[in-house]
Amino acid sequence: MNINRQWILARRPFGMVSADNFEYREVPVPEPGDGEVLVRNLYLSFDPTQRGWMEDRESYMPPVRIGEPMRAGAVGQVFASNHPDFETGELVQTLGGWQDFLVANPSAGMLSLSKLPPGIDPAMILSVLGTTGQTAYWGLLDLGKPQSGETVLVSGAAGATGSVAGQIARIKGCRVIGIAGGPEKCAWLTEEARFDDAIDYKSEDVDARIAELCPDRVDIFFDNVGGGILEAALNHINMRARVVMCGGISAYNATAPVPGPANLMNIVVMRARMEGFIVIDYMDRFAAAAQELMGWVQSGELVYQVDVQEGFENIPQTLTRLFTGQNRGKQLLKIADPA
Amino acid sequence: MNINRQWILARRPFGMVSADNFEYREVPVPEPGDGEVLVRNLYLSFDPTQRGWMEDRESYMPPVRIGEPMRAGAVGQVFASNHPDFETGELVQTLGGWQDFLVANPSAGMLSLSKLPPGIDPAMILSVLGTTGQTAYWGLLDLGKPQSGETVLVSGAAGATGSVAGQIARIKGCRVIGIAGGPEKCAWLTEEARFDDAIDYKSEDVDARIAELCPDRVDIFFDNVGGGILEAALNHINMRARVVMCGGISAYNATAPVPGPANLMNIVVMRARMEGFIVIDYMDRFAAAAQELMGWVQSGELVYQVDVQEGFENIPQTLTRLFTGQNRGKQLLKIADPA
Repeated sequence: MNINRQWILARRPFGMVSADNFEYREVPVPEPGDGEVLVRNLYLSFDPTQRGWMEDRESYMPPVRIGEPMRAGAVGQVFASNHPDFETGELVQTLGGWQDFLVANPSAGMLSLSKLPPGIDPAMILSVLGTTGQTAYWGLLDLGKPQSGETVLVSGAAGATGSVAGQIARIKGCRVIGIAGGPEKCAWLTEEARFDDAIDYKSEDVDARIAELCPDRVDIFFDNVGGGILEAALNHINMRARVVMCGGISAYNATAPVPGPANLMNIVVMRARMEGFIVIDYMDRFAAAAQELMGWVQSGELVYQVDVQEGFENIPQTLTRLFTGQNRGKQLLKIADPA
Repeated sequence: MNINRQWILARRPFGMVSADNFEYREVPVPEPGDGEVLVRNLYLSFDPTQRGWMEDRESYMPPVRIGEPMRAGAVGQVFASNHPDFETGELVQTLGGWQDFLVANPSAGMLSLSKLPPGIDPAMILSVLGTTGQTAYWGLLDLGKPQSGETVLVSGAAGATGSVAGQIARIKGCRVIGIAGGPEKCAWLTEEARFDDAIDYKSEDVDARIAELCPDRVDIFFDNVGGGILEAALNHINMRARVVMCGGISAYNATAPVPGPANLMNIVVMRARMEGFIVIDYMDRFAAAAQELMGWVQSGELVYQVDVQEGFENIPQTLTRLFTGQNRGKQLLKIADPA
């Protein structure tokens, strides 16, 4: 246990991210300094936003540097502690990335290191109660402001964020339509997540199906996809519609700039709003949201899927699953069970 | 005076609107019925939004039908009245369009017929105090919410709406940069309208100039243009920026869908907002806004330009001036002086 396995960012991607962008290396396990904590990673989170972190460009976080372990959300366990508030064996959440061990400094803030509530399932804290669930919660409620009886359309609806956003909309009394890829995901949406209907963008005319399934037009479009899906949705927005801009996965692996929708003027005609957000701005309110989300899970109103891969060697390929649509709900990888 | 001259919409435009889309005809002057008013048009307003009214598609107003006089804002004079509240000789505002005479019904609402305050200059009511000034006022203040010290970027800045939006931003303590076409318009912006600086999109690299002139980035982008100008602006938005979507004149005469900006994800990264509006929604508050605008005009804080063409025969060509950039400020055409 003196070796720290890592997957480092070796080459920035051009186009589709692949395992070739990363290199495996082994380094010594780092030593925690005064006030620091040594964490051993157990579960890694895979999120579309990681693709952006691989680009050498300004964003809401600095790019991952070449030669650094790939940044990723993770649940880990305190392995050694020089900080009075952290004890060996406690479960923590970090942005520690693709490695077995990392040194974290509790004074660097919640994003860097936070404790998990006792007894919590690590897979839940990395999915429905964590970043993706929180993204759904704050995006839908704070930006979308759903009103009972409204029609809510969600793209990337079978994903970890979209599926939660749609279900919260249903809980709030909205009619909810999801857009997802393939019959299996669409069936999950209507049968398990109890969306009112689902559109399979791989086999259906999305524009025509939105028109058909949203006769009162779309009051909230929660968008994870962008591109042609966004354009189709904008054709059917209602007066004073809110477009919650959560992500644009359709363009994350593009090799050239992808033009935006040609119908932005519908925003003007319909007095609508498109608004973006980054969930880390809500971090100081995560605990309250997690409590409400947990309540919905326990009452059966909110279901979630986790797709847990295993094996340190499979980390790079697991990231690509997000962009090929292979993942079934929240993509995780288990490195190790808690000690 | 028994003839009513009209320019009717004869053919819907494909691409750039031209005089060929209209046909001249003469019809009898209509008779006002019970409770109706016969209005003689004096001044016509020309607005980019008229281009949209010529298309056979759903929008915030129904399309102008083929064979109907082209719809246009106008100031006219009551010529005969069967309504107790309207007297012959009073000045009124209508949407009466490209004709000498129209019958209006006061019960059809303010958009159809409203009285002008006594002594008002018709050119003012069709510009700085009217639709274009109101559009600037409500778009900037209600959607943009300018704060003192913020940076405001305006496209179509020498136009009737953009010039007023930028000056209101300056009055509210903002740093204001305008984008316009050609050195004459840019000089007017900085010298007369007292913008802090101007970018000539015809001769300058708009993206580079925004970067240079907005070192603290752009807090509000008041956009009348869309297209490449919008994309350039989105590259430089600040955190929590507001993009006031007023219009998109760059695409109004396009013959094929014009792709939107490729950088919409900057809206997400910067937690920004793009919002559209139609000024008629604010009509019940026009009077109060007109009073404030008039105060700024009288104190010299707000200047405006009107470009008054003359001659009924020149009506169709005058519309095209908006899309070639020939207009200098608010485009009007005088049909006749008040009797």
